[in-house]
Amino acid sequence: MADRLQKHSGAVLRKALETGAIDRAGSEEDIRLADILYLCLYPQADVDFTREHRKVIRPGCLVTDTCGIKSWLCPRMTALAKESGFVFVGGHPMAGKEKNGFDQSDGTLFRGASYILVPCGAPHRDVERLEAVALKLGFSGTVETTPEEHDRIIAFTSQLPHVLACAYVQSPQCPKHRGFSAGSYRDVSRVATINETMWTELFLENRSALVKELDTLTGHITEIRDAIASGNAEALSSLLRKGRLIKEALGE
Amino acid sequence: MADRLQKHSGAVLRKALETGAIDRAGSEEDIRLADILYLCLYPQADVDFTREHRKVIRPGCLVTDTCGIKSWLCPRMTALAKESGFVFVGGHPMAGKEKNGFDQSDGTLFRGASYILVPCGAPHRDVERLEAVALKLGFSGTVETTPEEHDRIIAFTSQLPHVLACAYVQSPQCPKHRGFSAGSYRDVSRVATINETMWTELFLENRSALVKELDTLTGHITEIRDAIASGNAEALSSLLRKGRLIKEALGE
Repeated sequence: MADRLQKHSGAVLRKALETGAIDRAGSEEDIRLADILYLCLYPQADVDFTREHRKVIRPGCLVTDTCGIKSWLCPRMTALAKESGFVFVGGHPMAGKEKNGFDQSDGTLFRGASYILVPCGAPHRDVERLEAVALKLGFSGTVETTPEEHDRIIAFTSQLPHVLACAYVQSPQCPKHRGFSAGSYRDVSRVATINETMWTELFLENRSALVKELDTLTGHITEIRDAIASGNAEALSSLLRKGRLIKEALGE
Repeated sequence: MADRLQKHSGAVLRKALETGAIDRAGSEEDIRLADILYLCLYPQADVDFTREHRKVIRPGCLVTDTCGIKSWLCPRMTALAKESGFVFVGGHPMAGKEKNGFDQSDGTLFRGASYILVPCGAPHRDVERLEAVALKLGFSGTVETTPEEHDRIIAFTSQLPHVLACAYVQSPQCPKHRGFSAGSYRDVSRVATINETMWTELFLENRSALVKELDTLTGHITEIRDAIASGNAEALSSLLRKGRLIKEALGE
């Protein structure tokens, strides 16, 4: 993906300029003048870009990222911030799509979504500045958290469904689904059109939290599977009810 | 659920009459006059109802069901049909919701959906009659299949996502998801508001196909899990790409 982006960045920049999505392609001079710098790369590339340009980021500049893991990223960015005199606050817009690239951009994507902020010890006024930008972009609100809590919950809410989708569509029944499927198939398989370069990095940089969630999930699937295999209606019904009550308690 | 329906059927009937959804509450006389009889009960209740009323179903009447399993149901219904002189064709509208009850009815639910027909040896003209009704109801088309193929594919497209949703929301992270979630969480957890009475019956009546799908799924999840746990980027990326290519080959 990174390669593909690089290769097509000329064409993408032209489209972004033509549609008015950006004012101009940025330069080192723009970084030098920036009050806030949004890094919208993959985690390792965020660190590499910052390290490479740290001499032109002015002291006091507020640097933030938009990537999906934080325990791996934040200590690295905070160390660079300390070394170079800028401020770092982690950020994660909870809005995405199963397709990527400039042609998939959508002016309504952020509407009603949540923006996660990970202060990492930054001054509160800087966190508030990012909150203000998020609200202006259409997000409905922000939540503040630690890198560790972020990664534990994101392993469940976002990473797990992506693993699931890729595992799910590998069933020999999948190619026969047309005419035999509706919302349930569509929902579970949706994000199987995964960007494997990005998600491989994200999964490996959140390895312990994600493996824990995967083991929890397969444990719960196996409980239900065993109740079905042994024909235990009472146990099965009770496990399904457990799921329903959790979902209903959330008002969903 | 069956109990709840019974208890509230008076109120439901009144609402259905008031909104014009039905012309009148049916009687034995209506069954006697029927050209087509749609059974919209759970599988065991479909069989019980038919057995109880088989003497008033006139010879040649076309009886069909709408339930989600067929290998268990079809031989029982076909035996009753033979015994009583009516015709049975299995049916399964591929349109549903994560909520149930009359208040959840939706005039657009069938639009664009597929209607599965399981002829079970019935004359072709009877299958065509049900197809014509399905198209009038707004379905976009029908597919014909055997009870066994129906159950194998439905185990994957419909039953598996319901097991998954109930297993997924049991993670200790689930109650903390607000502010940390978006479409992926919503999609995988949606059908956790399960009707456990109905699905317990459906799962147990499709036990072998469903257990096979569950084992296939946990096998594929475990492959991805092991690649993550061992930090094997190449294996992980290749497993995710496999999922993407399957999904893309389906044009989705």
